Amino acid sequence: MNYNIAVIKGDGIGPEIVSEAMLVLEKIGEKFGHTFKFQEVLAGGCSIDANGIPLTDETIEICKNADSVLLGAVGGPKWDNVPSAKRPEKALLGLRAALGLFANIRPAMMYKALADACPIKKEIIGDGFDIVVCRELTGDVYFGNHYRKESDCGWGEMGCDDMNYSVYEVERIARRAFEMARVRSKKVTSVDKANVLETSRVWRETVTRIAAEYPDVELQHMYVDNAAMQLVHSPGQFDVLLTGNLFGDILSDEASMITGSIGMLPSASIGETGRGMYEPIHGSAPDIAGKGIANPIATILSCAMMLRYSFGLSAEADAIEQAVGKALDNGCRTADIASPGQTALSTSEMGQVIRDLI
Amino acid sequence: MNYNIAVIKGDGIGPEIVSEAMLVLEKIGEKFGHTFKFQEVLAGGCSIDANGIPLTDETIEICKNADSVLLGAVGGPKWDNVPSAKRPEKALLGLRAALGLFANIRPAMMYKALADACPIKKEIIGDGFDIVVCRELTGDVYFGNHYRKESDCGWGEMGCDDMNYSVYEVERIARRAFEMARVRSKKVTSVDKANVLETSRVWRETVTRIAAEYPDVELQHMYVDNAAMQLVHSPGQFDVLLTGNLFGDILSDEASMITGSIGMLPSASIGETGRGMYEPIHGSAPDIAGKGIANPIATILSCAMMLRYSFGLSAEADAIEQAVGKALDNGCRTADIASPGQTALSTSEMGQVIRDLI
Ligand SMILES: CC(C)[C@H](C(=O)O)[C@@H](O)C(=O)O
Ligand SMILES: CC(C)[C@H](C(=O)O)[C@@H](O)C(=O)O
Repeated sequence: MNYNIAVIKGDGIGPEIVSEAMLVLEKIGEKFGHTFKFQEVLAGGCSIDANGIPLTDETIEICKNADSVLLGAVGGPKWDNVPSAKRPEKALLGLRAALGLFANIRPAMMYKALADACPIKKEIIGDGFDIVVCRELTGDVYFGNHYRKESDCGWGEMGCDDMNYSVYEVERIARRAFEMARVRSKKVTSVDKANVLETSRVWRETVTRIAAEYPDVELQHMYVDNAAMQLVHSPGQFDVLLTGNLFGDILSDEASMITGSIGMLPSASIGETGRGMYEPIHGSAPDIAGKGIANPIATILSCAMMLRYSFGLSAEADAIEQAVGKALDNGCRTADIASPGQTALSTSEMGQVIRDLI
Repeated sequence: MNYNIAVIKGDGIGPEIVSEAMLVLEKIGEKFGHTFKFQEVLAGGCSIDANGIPLTDETIEICKNADSVLLGAVGGPKWDNVPSAKRPEKALLGLRAALGLFANIRPAMMYKALADACPIKKEIIGDGFDIVVCRELTGDVYFGNHYRKESDCGWGEMGCDDMNYSVYEVERIARRAFEMARVRSKKVTSVDKANVLETSRVWRETVTRIAAEYPDVELQHMYVDNAAMQLVHSPGQFDVLLTGNLFGDILSDEASMITGSIGMLPSASIGETGRGMYEPIHGSAPDIAGKGIANPIATILSCAMMLRYSFGLSAEADAIEQAVGKALDNGCRTADIASPGQTALSTSEMGQVIRDLI
């Protein structure tokens, strides 16, 4: 089969790590008989530099016509003083909206080989944990109106944002969560703030109703403040964590940090169609950009998610994930995950090791 | 001096822990020559049972006329199916609004004597940490309109909440944060989501402007998702954490859990006047209510905050805090903080030990 992939290398370490991931896809292509065609487009800071805006219509068109999008990372201090409407992050928000990517899937698991890097005590982590955060990505206060107005009690200007969720938006993300739980440990924890927010009350009612379609999956509701505590206190209790856009932003990052393996974690953003956007969860790390030392594993694992979720190629996805696992078991480390005394591989050496193991 | 304190014992373990705290205040009164007069009022679940609503006008009046309010904890599964407008938590939100308690002050520090209970690895915690969360408490999406309407694109009913902050609201909480930082380690980390929310952009601009009044204090801005990570990764970097109402709800609970001493942490909710509401951050723990084993320390330390913030009695506050510190150093533990093999004191035994040390 032929697959067209739009590639957004992005800023900072983006180009280095995406290049390694593309080579991994080519290796998979050779081995399993697929052709991956890459079309590189600009978004984020490099697009601001080239076009004055972080996301052009051309980039959106190419991504819409591709079978999937592979993204490195966008942003950096260089664009910190760009007016907010044109900042690099707007490229992410714009692509999510334009491509209808309403579901953000982020595994947060601890790699046993990297247990030492986990900030949580061994007594708590035990045998590790394996959470998938299923975050709604095109609704909530992110995509309501943002505006200013004068307060009517003399308290000066007000910044305002409209938070909301419709029943349909909750239904479709809830179904994704239950379907994922079905092939995992059969438990969904739905996070909200239903003791305060109407948005959360619609969320909770709808998730409860959808849960009836999945009698084999256990549903638990949890307030967001409690979820933030429980992730630290006993991460092992979670299987699929279902959240809205804002709470998911906070909790998925907290969950990632708890793994201790933030340079390792991929993500998928998917919609109603097969097309998705795949990217590492880490940032553009401008401080180490261009040095050839960045860890490409999160981007390579993002390709595995693309193969599985967008192209239905599970065996190919497994091959990548197993190769990464073996590389780690063999003691291969980039600088960010090397223990004191361990030799660190460069970005391209790590890519090569993984390709050799495929 | 005479001080009138409105006392809301509340639900679950509330009555047991508040009783010990009242005895501690009486001991302080004897020793330093003050009189504390207590007037008990109902709020939360017990008010629902007695009056059908979680907060009566009478309770509000008595709290308004008191010099301060001491609160145990409200809520419990017994009232889980009460309609949302009448749930026990509404008593908290109602009291915060009625008393104008816009600043919630929550220390999150690790007690060295309890370092074993900290979920974070020793390498990360080092010598411990000492954070104060300064959370805005009467604004944000908590107090905007909450309503439902039909979506205009056929996506069904929508839950809606209006998020906003006025310049004045941000100014007054920012000043509290900078003033606290001044007498601590002189660093304020202000948390927002200014890359997405207009509320946050007003927040950030205003905090930046107020910071100019405090040139001796360092100001750092941090996105909320990053703050959730940094709390796990390196809590020692924070001094005063300044947040809005919603982000503060999440981050203050996360910070508390990271201390490992959640049964020990007090809180103060204060406004423009001296009057405040003081309460432990833990909940009503209905599972252990009535057994006489709950830890009264967080409530006792809340009284120390009351003495310091509302009554200006620092020496008296110090006396309580030192007594608690000594009790811990002497190995006194309630069941929740006892290590395996350690004998656990009852609620009243712990109260007595602390009083004896004053
Ligand atoms: C950059 C920002 C707008 C974005 C978000 O908040 O969604 C990021 O934090 C993420 O989680 O992908
Ligand atoms: C009970 C709830 C409404 C409350 C809040 O969210 O403010 C609580 O979580 C708190 O932090 O005091």
